[in-house]
Amino acid sequence: MVQLGIRAVPVRRRGHRLEQDFVVIEEPLEIRVNGKPLVVTMRTPGHDEELAAGFLYSESVIKSRQDLSNIRTKTGITTDNLQIKSTLFDGDKVEVELHEATTTLMVEKAQRDFRSTAACGVCGKERIEDLEQELPRITPISFSTELLESLPNTLRREQKLFNQTGGIHAAGLFTPTGKLIYVREDIGRHNAVDKVIGRGVLDGKVPLAGQILVVSGRAGFELVQKALKASIPIMVSVGAASSVAVEMATDAGMALYSFAAPGRGNLHVGISNT
Amino acid sequence: MVQLGIRAVPVRRRGHRLEQDFVVIEEPLEIRVNGKPLVVTMRTPGHDEELAAGFLYSESVIKSRQDLSNIRTKTGITTDNLQIKSTLFDGDKVEVELHEATTTLMVEKAQRDFRSTAACGVCGKERIEDLEQELPRITPISFSTELLESLPNTLRREQKLFNQTGGIHAAGLFTPTGKLIYVREDIGRHNAVDKVIGRGVLDGKVPLAGQILVVSGRAGFELVQKALKASIPIMVSVGAASSVAVEMATDAGMALYSFAAPGRGNLHVGISNT
Repeated sequence: MVQLGIRAVPVRRRGHRLEQDFVVIEEPLEIRVNGKPLVVTMRTPGHDEELAAGFLYSESVIKSRQDLSNIRTKTGITTDNLQIKSTLFDGDKVEVELHEATTTLMVEKAQRDFRSTAACGVCGKERIEDLEQELPRITPISFSTELLESLPNTLRREQKLFNQTGGIHAAGLFTPTGKLIYVREDIGRHNAVDKVIGRGVLDGKVPLAGQILVVSGRAGFELVQKALKASIPIMVSVGAASSVAVEMATDAGMALYSFAAPGRGNLHVGISNT
Repeated sequence: MVQLGIRAVPVRRRGHRLEQDFVVIEEPLEIRVNGKPLVVTMRTPGHDEELAAGFLYSESVIKSRQDLSNIRTKTGITTDNLQIKSTLFDGDKVEVELHEATTTLMVEKAQRDFRSTAACGVCGKERIEDLEQELPRITPISFSTELLESLPNTLRREQKLFNQTGGIHAAGLFTPTGKLIYVREDIGRHNAVDKVIGRGVLDGKVPLAGQILVVSGRAGFELVQKALKASIPIMVSVGAASSVAVEMATDAGMALYSFAAPGRGNLHVGISNT
């Protein structure tokens, strides 16, 4: 049983035997708003409505589910949809309709900003000033480092596509007591986070104040930005944090715990010049 | 001695002792052409002219060094430049001037394409059709898998910033006999590749036919696309390849060797639906 999001490919290993391996599917998704193209992201198929909702939330186009009139994938992703596409980029689309009341302002913003923005929250922006975003101030919550250090293993057990391919990121949202709420995998780190937050948007649960975001890879600034936008007070990463991720998280009052694993982790407390 | 590209930060580890750790610097670079902003990328400072040259080459704005009149960083990156910036995104700029003969066509193309493009070669593109690029057909070269499997270790020994931070990508260009030509590290995988190819552009060595590109992480499609654009016939990745990377590489005649390490590796021979 091949899962949605991965594809069997033939490979030659040492000794030149032809074997079957699985790779993560990476395909474009065009996010369209009110009938117009907005942005393209390379993503792993599945949960595309969540991806669109999370992306639009991250970029301040929508504030909650109430701003959405409708979201649907245009070609329909099903578990049968594993055939080779006719051309390399003959990809999928997700159509988002916004409510009339929010439409005018938001489509204007889209026309102005999104021509030069991107799903990862940074590339494609045209000027450095375009990067600055207004972010809510975080309400800190208490935590034990032991609990935070246990979360990557919990996430890891749910990374079904990673287990089959070794090449996909994951993001998980947890309660303060360490209960997994959502987990999503995607070849793009930012997409995995958008899908998790987008699920929160669609479930009417944003802002996600009081929850914990865990990411399987590095804590880059764009992931911290997306988490802050959703008012998430704690972010845990399996990999390293970057300088600007540390700066942005600690400035906002978010607890950022990098290189987390049982018995270890770095709690960032600010940035210094020493 | 702190190296360019990393920054010391205080962290609390288990037991709440405050210690010093190093994180990779992630800062925006605005690439400007003929006095106008073109694109912003989050990158690790250093080799910014190479990054700009490689990006412009990847996106077909320039064909060789001959198209460049001048490239200079506006704020000047030096090894002393490790102080905290006044605002989070008070970043650096690189100014590229193109020769008059190429200017009109290229700036028009820039105006049309780059408002919605990105340094990673995908995010920010507005419509799926925008992703398709004309790529040269590759001239295959012969290789031994044993040699390819040895290259990640050679690259690894030169990953100086990775050794100090555990959180940065690298790309290396090798001769067919396994001699390292260039190595560059960057928090963005695509930037590391742009820097390597950009060094080739500035050295007057493009196209890089007959050379081998090695990347420290996964082989995503945007890296394969950049390598193909430079006519590189062999790409080796330490991590997994994605579906579209396999499809694009094998369609073009490039040898893509993923999960490469001494004694193992997957040589991709095409994409199948089984």
